Formats: sequence, C-alpha cells, structure tokens
Amino acid sequence: MTHVTIIGSGNMGQAISGLVSKGGNTVELLRHSDTGKPVTGDIVVLAVPHAAIPDILATRGDQLAGKVVVDITNPLNFQTFDSLTVPADSSAAAQIAASLPQSRVVKAFNTNLAATLASGTAGEVPTTVLIAGDDRQAKSQLADVVTAGGLRAIDSGSLRRARELEALGFLQITLAAQDKMPWTGGFALAG
Amino acid sequence: MTHVTIIGSGNMGQAISGLVSKGGNTVELLRHSDTGKPVTGDIVVLAVPHAAIPDILATRGDQLAGKVVVDITNPLNFQTFDSLTVPADSSAAAQIAASLPQSRVVKAFNTNLAATLASGTAGEVPTTVLIAGDDRQAKSQLADVVTAGGLRAIDSGSLRRARELEALGFLQITLAAQDKMPWTGGFALAG
Repeated sequence: MTHVTIIGSGNMGQAISGLVSKGGNTVELLRHSDTGKPVTGDIVVLAVPHAAIPDILATRGDQLAGKVVVDITNPLNFQTFDSLTVPADSSAAAQIAASLPQSRVVKAFNTNLAATLASGTAGEVPTTVLIAGDDRQAKSQLADVVTAGGLRAIDSGSLRRARELEALGFLQITLAAQDKMPWTGGFALAG
Repeated sequence: MTHVTIIGSGNMGQAISGLVSKGGNTVELLRHSDTGKPVTGDIVVLAVPHAAIPDILATRGDQLAGKVVVDITNPLNFQTFDSLTVPADSSAAAQIAASLPQSRVVKAFNTNLAATLASGTAGEVPTTVLIAGDDRQAKSQLADVVTAGGLRAIDSGSLRRARELEALGFLQITLAAQDKMPWTGGFALAG
C-alpha cells in the first residue's frame, strides 16, 4: 500500500486521485490553499499550475524532504501559446529538483490529458503514463501506483528527458486548444 | 499533380517515396551520392541523416531555391543517446531554414517511424504526419501529398514548433531503441 498526497484539486488532481484510489492505494487530496494540513504521503504529486510551484516550494518545501515528488506541470507561456516559461536547456522538473535536494523528483502525467487518466484510454488506445527521473526506485514506486490503477507506465529515462516530456505536453496542449486533437485523446503510445 | 524529389534512399526515403506514389503524385528518388542529377521536384524531401545535411546544403543549396524543402531529420547525438546535436533553443529545421533563405522550409515526418508510413498505421491508430513551418501554402501543399497517399496530416504550427517535433522524435527513438515501444508503433495521435 502506498500513501499518496496530491496537492491541487483541479481536473488533474482529481483524475490522479481517482487513479490512485482505483489501484487500492490511499490518497490525501489537499487544495493549494490547505496550507495548515501536513503532507502525509510517501509520494507527493504537485498537481497545481506551473505558476503556483514557487509558492508550493516556499510553503511546503521542508515537508517534501525524503518524499518522492511528482511534477506534472506544463510550463506554458499562456499569453503567447508559443513557448515554455523555463529555459530551453532546462525543464520545470529540473528546476524543482534543484530546489528540493532532499526529495526524489520525477516528471510524470504531464503528457496525459486529464480525461484520458479517468477513462483509461486516449482515443481507443490504453493510456500510458510516461515517467522520467534520476531515481529508479522512485520511478518504480510511482509506476506501481499507476499500473495498479489500470494504466500503463513507461520509464522514459533520466530527469533530463523531462525536457522532451514537457515539449510533448506543450505540443499536445497547443494542438488540442486549436481543436486539432480531442481533449479525450492526444499523443498515445501505440503498438 | 505534385512532383516530389526525395534525396536519400534509406528506409525513410523509400517509405516517403511509396506514400507520394500511392497518392498519384510523381517522385524523383535520388541517392545522396547522385550529385550529378538535378533536383526536379517542387517539393524536395531531405531524407538523409542529420549529419549529411551540411553536405546537401553545400552541394544542392542553389538548386533548392524556390522549392518547398522538407526536413525530416532527428538530430540525435548517437554517441550518448542523451541529447540532440542542435542548440536547445533552436532546431535542425530552423538551422536549415537559415541556410536556405530562398526556400520554404517545413518540418515533417520526423515523428513518424518508417514502418508506420508504409503500413498507414501506428499500432492500430491511423498514421498522422505532423507538419510545422512558417509558410501556410507550403504546409498545405505537403499535407495534400500526405493525405492523397492515405495518411492524416496536421498543421502543427510555425517553424518554431520544429523544436517540439524534434523533441518528440528524439524521445520516440530512445524508447523504441530500448524496446519500450515497437518500431511499428510510436506516438500516435489518438482520438
């Protein structure tokens, strides 16, 4: 049994909460504003918009020591929809990892549209969660939670691959926002 | 009828040649070494490894003026399999476009594994060709050739999006090379 804290109760936080519960693991779902409640999970999913990450790190950083921290953000520039807000040679996940040296940070879920986590399919294809990180055990622990919930999980490499996962998430959002792909589908891992 | 020149007769060159012919358009398939033969197509697909691009630009650059030039490359560092060989804030396509100011450069096909162009499916999902570029007419002309050949084509935005397409191609190759996805599948656009 793994106990998972999810910070952020929007579409993604709720979808990930459902996935964890479905697999028989336990969830603590905190709103960003629940600053008085402690983080009790072994895995902590930061299911907030990227712009809210600095505040989470400032208020919760100490509580995240020793935990597996899951960054699901897509750091889009929502004014232009034409770039990310992180440096081209870095990633949101790398920045979070640099701020949390006592945590094991993994990137995951940012390439999954929320509806595909709940339905278990992207279009007709089983939903796959891509996970990147430098700690194999952390990735494996998260993958176990994902597969227990009925989805596929793939170890996509080191935390350096977060850059490519964020590029994929960015591209997917721009295409969905232009109705070039449905929010119930997206980039599925086929074959 | 569109006349397409393909430079490079490897897996991808052959697959794209088959796609063009299938749609009733005409193909001139040149080997990289066929330097004596002129480029006759209105669309010219550079189906060579990224490392061969500088040589193509040096020997064929003048002949590409006025053409739609299609960059399909994935500029991987094949020594490390851990990065691209182009600057993080640029792309192979952007570099080619800078070298060919008289051509209309588009990025396409780099997110499609060769087998999926020939079969028409990535796993069970119809193959989609993602196209990025700054010239709408050039993208539309290539999309017409792709759809005539029975595949889907999606305008994925300006040439700036080549960076994300190359990230997607990079990630896909690293996963396929590790048997984490089949070479007959890959990232399909589902839904």
